[in-house]
Amino acid sequence: MSTAAISPTRAEDFPEWYQQVVRAADLAENSEVRGCMVIKPWGYGLWENMQKQLDIKFKATGHQNAYFPLLIPLSYLEKEAQHAEGFATECAVVTHHRLEAVKQADGTVKMIPTGELAEPFVIRPTSETIIGAAFARWVESYRDLPLLINQWANVMRWEMRPRLFLRTAEFLWQEGHTAHETAEEAIAEAALMHDVYEDFMRNHLAIPVIPGEKSERERFPGALNTLTVEAMVQDRKAIQAGTSHFLGQNFSKAANIEFLGRDNQRHFAWTTSWGVSTRMIGTLIMTHGDDDGVILPPRISPTQIVILPVTPKPDSREAVIDACDALAKTLRTIQYMGEPLRVHVDKRDMAGGAKNWDWIKKGVPLRVEIGPRDITNRSVAVARRDKGPKEKEFIGKEEFIRRADDILDEIQSVLLQRATALRDSNTKKIDNEADFRAFFGTSGDNESKGEISGGFALVNWAGTSEDEERLQKELKVTIRCIPKGDQYAEEGACFLTGKPSHRRVIFAKSY
Amino acid sequence: MSTAAISPTRAEDFPEWYQQVVRAADLAENSEVRGCMVIKPWGYGLWENMQKQLDIKFKATGHQNAYFPLLIPLSYLEKEAQHAEGFATECAVVTHHRLEAVKQADGTVKMIPTGELAEPFVIRPTSETIIGAAFARWVESYRDLPLLINQWANVMRWEMRPRLFLRTAEFLWQEGHTAHETAEEAIAEAALMHDVYEDFMRNHLAIPVIPGEKSERERFPGALNTLTVEAMVQDRKAIQAGTSHFLGQNFSKAANIEFLGRDNQRHFAWTTSWGVSTRMIGTLIMTHGDDDGVILPPRISPTQIVILPVTPKPDSREAVIDACDALAKTLRTIQYMGEPLRVHVDKRDMAGGAKNWDWIKKGVPLRVEIGPRDITNRSVAVARRDKGPKEKEFIGKEEFIRRADDILDEIQSVLLQRATALRDSNTKKIDNEADFRAFFGTSGDNESKGEISGGFALVNWAGTSEDEERLQKELKVTIRCIPKGDQYAEEGACFLTGKPSHRRVIFAKSY
Repeated sequence: MSTAAISPTRAEDFPEWYQQVVRAADLAENSEVRGCMVIKPWGYGLWENMQKQLDIKFKATGHQNAYFPLLIPLSYLEKEAQHAEGFATECAVVTHHRLEAVKQADGTVKMIPTGELAEPFVIRPTSETIIGAAFARWVESYRDLPLLINQWANVMRWEMRPRLFLRTAEFLWQEGHTAHETAEEAIAEAALMHDVYEDFMRNHLAIPVIPGEKSERERFPGALNTLTVEAMVQDRKAIQAGTSHFLGQNFSKAANIEFLGRDNQRHFAWTTSWGVSTRMIGTLIMTHGDDDGVILPPRISPTQIVILPVTPKPDSREAVIDACDALAKTLRTIQYMGEPLRVHVDKRDMAGGAKNWDWIKKGVPLRVEIGPRDITNRSVAVARRDKGPKEKEFIGKEEFIRRADDILDEIQSVLLQRATALRDSNTKKIDNEADFRAFFGTSGDNESKGEISGGFALVNWAGTSEDEERLQKELKVTIRCIPKGDQYAEEGACFLTGKPSHRRVIFAKSY
Repeated sequence: MSTAAISPTRAEDFPEWYQQVVRAADLAENSEVRGCMVIKPWGYGLWENMQKQLDIKFKATGHQNAYFPLLIPLSYLEKEAQHAEGFATECAVVTHHRLEAVKQADGTVKMIPTGELAEPFVIRPTSETIIGAAFARWVESYRDLPLLINQWANVMRWEMRPRLFLRTAEFLWQEGHTAHETAEEAIAEAALMHDVYEDFMRNHLAIPVIPGEKSERERFPGALNTLTVEAMVQDRKAIQAGTSHFLGQNFSKAANIEFLGRDNQRHFAWTTSWGVSTRMIGTLIMTHGDDDGVILPPRISPTQIVILPVTPKPDSREAVIDACDALAKTLRTIQYMGEPLRVHVDKRDMAGGAKNWDWIKKGVPLRVEIGPRDITNRSVAVARRDKGPKEKEFIGKEEFIRRADDILDEIQSVLLQRATALRDSNTKKIDNEADFRAFFGTSGDNESKGEISGGFALVNWAGTSEDEERLQKELKVTIRCIPKGDQYAEEGACFLTGKPSHRRVIFAKSY
């Protein structure tokens, strides 16, 4: 029998472990609205920090936030459908604008939709069309370019198999939309935001994503190029954690974003879009969590240090609480990543053991206990979430105050190192089809079972989209990305077709 | 003919002035989606600052943010309708979850809604029902109380006569929802948030709102008490700028928020809700704007100081730009309201006059010009938005750096003083019906025309809801609030019925 706080463990059943961890950490829950989640304060606190830290990077690279309508007229989608194929059509459709309350014989009330709309709307699954329509109004000449806009918003896609954070009908995200005078500028913009995402995930979330390009088959519909950052989580599957698209002129033609150029001719603008979502929270959990619960990187954790008063006897309770409050106050004067340390004193009236486990499951990076004896000794008992649940170190209080930010930095890098080690030890160069098949096993089901196999297969590739499709059907693997960087530029023969290939690509199962 | 930047002027046609000011300041625009606005970067920057500053106050009073589903099942509204009457039923109804793209004979694509839902949903017009359902899951005993939750979100009400910021189908807001063990605690919570709103509007937005209670007739449907903050804008009408409701047990009964009390019995929780929205931006504009455009209080302005390089000759351009950048860099080291000063150098290649007017219309509090001569003199030309468009003061650069935050504070208080003076000079104690009718005039239309009449009538009141309704029909006036504070506790006779009354209330026309 397992002695871990979460049952099942990761090894026993990874998908179920994930559900249990989310619940134990009180991050989110399902609602009665199919596929829509309630993001609870601890989970929303993570999102707030992600927003805040990304937003600083977006503004530092010249972007401004704006807000566009939630509803999209069907006519916009119809125009777009003529310029690009493959758009998701599973979306919420608004057809009426009124409810009529009808009293029933038994005294209850029935609400009947009335006021049918002449033109229905969909709830935005993404906002290229509606933002494109605004850009078309805003741009007249090359002097109005570039337009560098970002929106923080909710979007909705009717998902049939929802999972908290990873795939929900409604989710929160940001969507950047930019328009440029030249293709080169738009390509550079998409690459810049790709770098911003990689930097954020590596240095804030401690997720060593691999940046690269999508294959043609995996591109966003209508995009000329899709850049992605791919994470490997602990069941060795890939998660696409963020994408940045170079859209060419496809969307500007559909939305009519035209400008008078320096040559006095009319041109269509070159556009990009890029986004990350609350899916990052799911990725974070599956990257760092262990069998005792979530482990949060200090830079992103809603609370970085929790202080737990140890009050065995009522008569010392007040002195202990005062010492905890005083320590919290001092710690909050320390700047960490440009903000005061986020410190919480948990004064709830409950058993110390249960309280301690509560914070372990929530993944707070540092737990600090103070009891009557610690006051006498001027010491604190410090437990790091990246170490075992029972390990604690007694440190002089002053020393702890001096070292707190260093300890947090240490935890941050331990998490990044661990995730990098996991990724690297499950990334394998493979040069023939037999090894490739053995690496991934033959089981087709990539989600409902806890089975763990494979990882990232680095292969030379010169196959067609049809070859990709066949591998996906047989092995549930896809090209996650064509990774950026010289180390992947390796001459060789395609592992499947034998044709010459100049780069290795990553194949993996994925969420 | 008017020499002001905005045509018509406020005196000529206030409603049209408002539309033109919003456009000239590039704050927002209508979209093709009926009643839904696009909030442009300058307008969204205002909202971001409002959010940030309110959020600090919410957290300081113990609230946490969370996020709940956008869609509400009709069954929730049906349950609620049995406990309270009068809910708005103009809302967007989602009835289908799929679109089918059908290629037409002419090559165009038609999107057809399919996948009819067994139970339709509405897009949240407010979230009492869906948050109530979550609270019912979360609360078991009195130990789980209070629940102090806030949500930043978009909501939707199908408005027939939309106006940018003031009344739009979709708008952004925050909605606080709390549940408590006792009625007293819930009443105190509603009062606390009422105070937070008043403080925020007075001290951040420079809007001298009057806090008070709504009359029974004007309460939120289902509330036992609605607290409001009422602003007077420059056409002397009232705007309800924020509300805080004590909901009693009405909503907890509908949603079944039950807990085991200290007495070991089951009780329904006592709940509150409170909210402010992007309507505050409209209120801000109509409170402070003048015939040259918007005037923004420094604490809330997206940019507090704009630096305008004056470059008459190309050969001095680089030196001027460098001086501007250097000044901006220095100013940004100054902390104002806990954050670095928000300073922008406008390097756009356009005529100096047009550029200057652009920022006047946008309402930026301080404009600073630097030209070649200013570099020699070590001086800057400073223009305050609260003064005439041509007034500028030459100040030594070092002195300006030293005084910048004081000047901004001065502008902030001038704006509050002006708005207070306007409010006070248009607030009148009235003691009989004839004077009351004369004060408001007889024109019934309270919005489509620019006519300015009345203001706040302070009257002793002991009428009935029917009396209120009659006055509203005849004069388009309502009780805006029963103001808080001893100065309104004045014994007298009701101006309408002659019955004894212990307090004065405020009647006004309103948005």
